Amino acid sequence: MNYGSALYHGRRIVVGRVGDAALDLTAASLGSEFAPLFADGSLDALLAAGRPTWQAVHAAAASWAEHDLIPLEELTMLLPFTVADYVDFYASEQHATNVGRIFRPDGDALTPNWKHLPIGYHGRAGTVVVSGVDVVRPSGQAREPDGSIRFGPSRRLDIEAEVGFVVGTPSRQGIPVPIADFAEHVFGVCLVNDWSARDIQSWEYVPLGPFLGKSFATSISAWITPLDDLDAAWTAPPVRNPAPLPYLDDSPSPAALDLALEVRLNGELISRPPFAGMYWTPPQLLAHLTVNGASLRTGDLIASGTVSGPERDQRGSLLELSWNGTEPLQLAGGERSFLLDGDEVTITATALGREGPITLGEVTGRIVAQPATP
Amino acid sequence: MNYGSALYHGRRIVVGRVGDAALDLTAASLGSEFAPLFADGSLDALLAAGRPTWQAVHAAAASWAEHDLIPLEELTMLLPFTVADYVDFYASEQHATNVGRIFRPDGDALTPNWKHLPIGYHGRAGTVVVSGVDVVRPSGQAREPDGSIRFGPSRRLDIEAEVGFVVGTPSRQGIPVPIADFAEHVFGVCLVNDWSARDIQSWEYVPLGPFLGKSFATSISAWITPLDDLDAAWTAPPVRNPAPLPYLDDSPSPAALDLALEVRLNGELISRPPFAGMYWTPPQLLAHLTVNGASLRTGDLIASGTVSGPERDQRGSLLELSWNGTEPLQLAGGERSFLLDGDEVTITATALGREGPITLGEVTGRIVAQPATP
Repeated sequence: MNYGSALYHGRRIVVGRVGDAALDLTAASLGSEFAPLFADGSLDALLAAGRPTWQAVHAAAASWAEHDLIPLEELTMLLPFTVADYVDFYASEQHATNVGRIFRPDGDALTPNWKHLPIGYHGRAGTVVVSGVDVVRPSGQAREPDGSIRFGPSRRLDIEAEVGFVVGTPSRQGIPVPIADFAEHVFGVCLVNDWSARDIQSWEYVPLGPFLGKSFATSISAWITPLDDLDAAWTAPPVRNPAPLPYLDDSPSPAALDLALEVRLNGELISRPPFAGMYWTPPQLLAHLTVNGASLRTGDLIASGTVSGPERDQRGSLLELSWNGTEPLQLAGGERSFLLDGDEVTITATALGREGPITLGEVTGRIVAQPATP
Repeated sequence: MNYGSALYHGRRIVVGRVGDAALDLTAASLGSEFAPLFADGSLDALLAAGRPTWQAVHAAAASWAEHDLIPLEELTMLLPFTVADYVDFYASEQHATNVGRIFRPDGDALTPNWKHLPIGYHGRAGTVVVSGVDVVRPSGQAREPDGSIRFGPSRRLDIEAEVGFVVGTPSRQGIPVPIADFAEHVFGVCLVNDWSARDIQSWEYVPLGPFLGKSFATSISAWITPLDDLDAAWTAPPVRNPAPLPYLDDSPSPAALDLALEVRLNGELISRPPFAGMYWTPPQLLAHLTVNGASLRTGDLIASGTVSGPERDQRGSLLELSWNGTEPLQLAGGERSFLLDGDEVTITATALGREGPITLGEVTGRIVAQPATP
């Protein structure tokens, strides 16, 4: 059962998704030992409770499911948890290769470190928004082809279709989390659209990485799918060469997660990125993030980076789909290389569950122009 | 008066520094309208209250100052506020030039964007610790001169002497904060030591910037100096060429802050970085951070980047002081290029106040070896 947080008749409640309706877990758990986990209407207390409690809640919720069902349209979905730190990786070989070919056509597509460690960076936790919130087109500096500096609204606004992992159980500063402990710390999965202003990003990012090109907004799905529901979706990762260092060794467990993503622009399917093919697996991302002793906090959001597959229609960004604007997408609504004001992007995903396919929460967002300066 | 948060007889209280003692503001404010601002023992509520309240508290606290003084040694200082997002800039021209010369000896010392925008990146908020907390030496991957990859404890552990700005008043997502509104949003100043593992950093940072080389720990002073106490410390920034874009134009106000830093290694003075000479001023950093519509939250920490002056004894990192290990420091305790286990680094600062010099809170930290794996 996917979990979320919603406003319902002016009250914030925790909800569990049951088909096209939602179970009011804040009401349904009343009188049970689990009531305090849902009392504040966010997932924060549940996340902090740890895996044994997550599994106990999962079992108990099945007996609650007949009560307190609310039609989805009566809910206003909220950011489901308080985002602590937001880390974004770069774990798709196809994505990193495409970006390298586009921006560094004369060099190696992958940087020398790429196959040795999962490259990542910190993003802005305070601008993570829930699915459905409009995204204001950012302004910033960009360098024009003639070398001049332009300031104004981004002209190369893009998406990044990603998968996010939500940390529940924290860890101690100074103590790395071993790769085998992934499921002890991670509660579940969400979908992420890491909006990116390519013109701002490409001018600012040397040498300290992406900053304003990303920090204006990151959208996540309103619904979090617990790892417990994804038991059947783990599969073998691609072959890695060179072999990962011991702290990144995810064999022999099937460490790749088989999620089938779909990206729609104004309703039209533009890509089907396959998450199973990511070079670096979710347990490797968590192990790498903490190997230097960095601690985890409840609410940490760890995103995969853009999910791109080897086929053209499996690319997770417009940068790749339009090959930096040189091969615009031909859509029913017109040609598109980057996002126009009013464009709406929706990312969905399914996975194999124990009893058939399961659907992850979608993440959607619409681009709006900046408000006029008063 | 500097503000902090401390444990006192098992209770968390807000304290104001009065010479070598501290005023218990949680107790002293009882019965006043300001009591709720200090009730939880952190600065969070005060930060969120906004500038008019900060000034009213400042005025009222003078009348409280005779009561409830506690000797500092009876307090255990705590992280003074909940860190929301942590952003680190790279605002010293001398520092950026030194780093460029060391790592890119054949190229231009400054990247082409450096004088057009204040380069910055997000750090890990969850590993910000208060002055006095030991720092565990991080492990990670590093590339050896022969091209092989080594995994183990960092061999090039460094400091970065910085100044941090603590955001009180939040802003709305999608709406930039104009440069003139700096003091409406920023409550005060702390000192920052942005510990850096140079060997980990140099292998990982292309193309997405510093990550594990920095995320293991960042130390901040226990005491926050309100901007109100620094009225007399503002001065003219250096000449900027090219002229900053309008959103970064900090003229004609004296936008540079004249703080005199000192860095000590095991008690020995090794540097006196001058904050007044930073190329990008604090108001410029805030304006840039938000120009893309990124919102501010109460508790955001905005650090300047390493403060280095033009003289050798004004450099704010060991990387620069030892010129990447080629010119080790000759200290009473022996030669030093990077930090050894047991080394203790303390950064202090003074400024001109309205009634004579004022002292900022110091930030100190000691390096400890990783605990043995059980």
